[in-house]
Amino acid sequence: MEQRFRANLINSLSGFKSANIIGTANAKGDTNLCIVSSVFHVGANPPLMGMLMRPHTVVRDTLKNIKDNGEYTINHVPITHFKNAHQTSARYPSETSEFDACGFSVEKSEILSAPYVAESTIKIGLKLQQVSLIELNNTELVIGEVVEISLAEQLITNDGYVDIEKAKSACVSGLDSYHRTTRMDRLGYAAPERPVYSTLSSLDSLN
Amino acid sequence: MEQRFRANLINSLSGFKSANIIGTANAKGDTNLCIVSSVFHVGANPPLMGMLMRPHTVVRDTLKNIKDNGEYTINHVPITHFKNAHQTSARYPSETSEFDACGFSVEKSEILSAPYVAESTIKIGLKLQQVSLIELNNTELVIGEVVEISLAEQLITNDGYVDIEKAKSACVSGLDSYHRTTRMDRLGYAAPERPVYSTLSSLDSLN
Repeated sequence: MEQRFRANLINSLSGFKSANIIGTANAKGDTNLCIVSSVFHVGANPPLMGMLMRPHTVVRDTLKNIKDNGEYTINHVPITHFKNAHQTSARYPSETSEFDACGFSVEKSEILSAPYVAESTIKIGLKLQQVSLIELNNTELVIGEVVEISLAEQLITNDGYVDIEKAKSACVSGLDSYHRTTRMDRLGYAAPERPVYSTLSSLDSLN
Repeated sequence: MEQRFRANLINSLSGFKSANIIGTANAKGDTNLCIVSSVFHVGANPPLMGMLMRPHTVVRDTLKNIKDNGEYTINHVPITHFKNAHQTSARYPSETSEFDACGFSVEKSEILSAPYVAESTIKIGLKLQQVSLIELNNTELVIGEVVEISLAEQLITNDGYVDIEKAKSACVSGLDSYHRTTRMDRLGYAAPERPVYSTLSSLDSLN
């Protein structure tokens, strides 16, 4: 199978993926952005998020900054900015900030040196917990702990769920297909002797 | 933070997630299904897919079968069956097949003993490659190699991308919110001196 064909095919198979922009800075304070579709939930307690990165690719600056500083931000790609976000995957020189090159603005964290993307409606600050090598294909699994969350309170429902569709978060399929979403339903905790039921009507925003 | 509130909150933060049903069988041939939102792309060459599982939870039968047999299937949740798929998360007794309990039909693989979900439009057969413990929170990272793919040829575009939206694959946010998608665009390979461009018009189905 031709390499690009195979990459497109296999990348599509896992299903829909998250669309996030990783924000980092080096020791001099130079900022860097890179879109990734590999962020995933690891656990809620402690609050952990993971992502897979292939060294020596376009994420090289991002990965170096994370390892050097131990800090990074995860910013949801808003559907209003998916083209800008895609452009952060271009191989800019290390000294070019993708904030300027791709049309994003820095928002400062209160506790981290890594920059947030102001245009993102859901921003997460993390401290690096571990980097481990997946030897099967020489990718690195980066796991961080959530230390700061920045989002509008009205996006949080009274059971803690964050309405990321209301936040206009995009999703990705394959390497380069961007999608918006339409909620079908939220469903209650499943039990063997109970039919599936909707919980949507019982859920309100926190304010 | 209250435990369920925290679980909903942190599970929402990573962004949209894939919706897949894992199909397995034990040595006696008893079948098992379990919906997961933790499947992610690991690499295209070799073709690897990962998923995170917490032992001693509802996935216990699935995880045991995978470890015992070294085989499993990943089946996209179709938007037509998201309620049936959600119901597979109920704690049925080990001897109950979720195929029967939740309204799904078995489709046999040509090379694996693990069952496919007939109602799924994208079905992937895998052989286990490794299970590794993430000590930070005692979850297990399960990585398998794709050995069989079953989907309609008209879902594959001429560059290898599988149109999982056309396949009616669902996506998930948080623990229990189900969404369908609307494609905004597919974008070409990004380069510093080139504006973002759409590739949609140049892409056709393979047949």
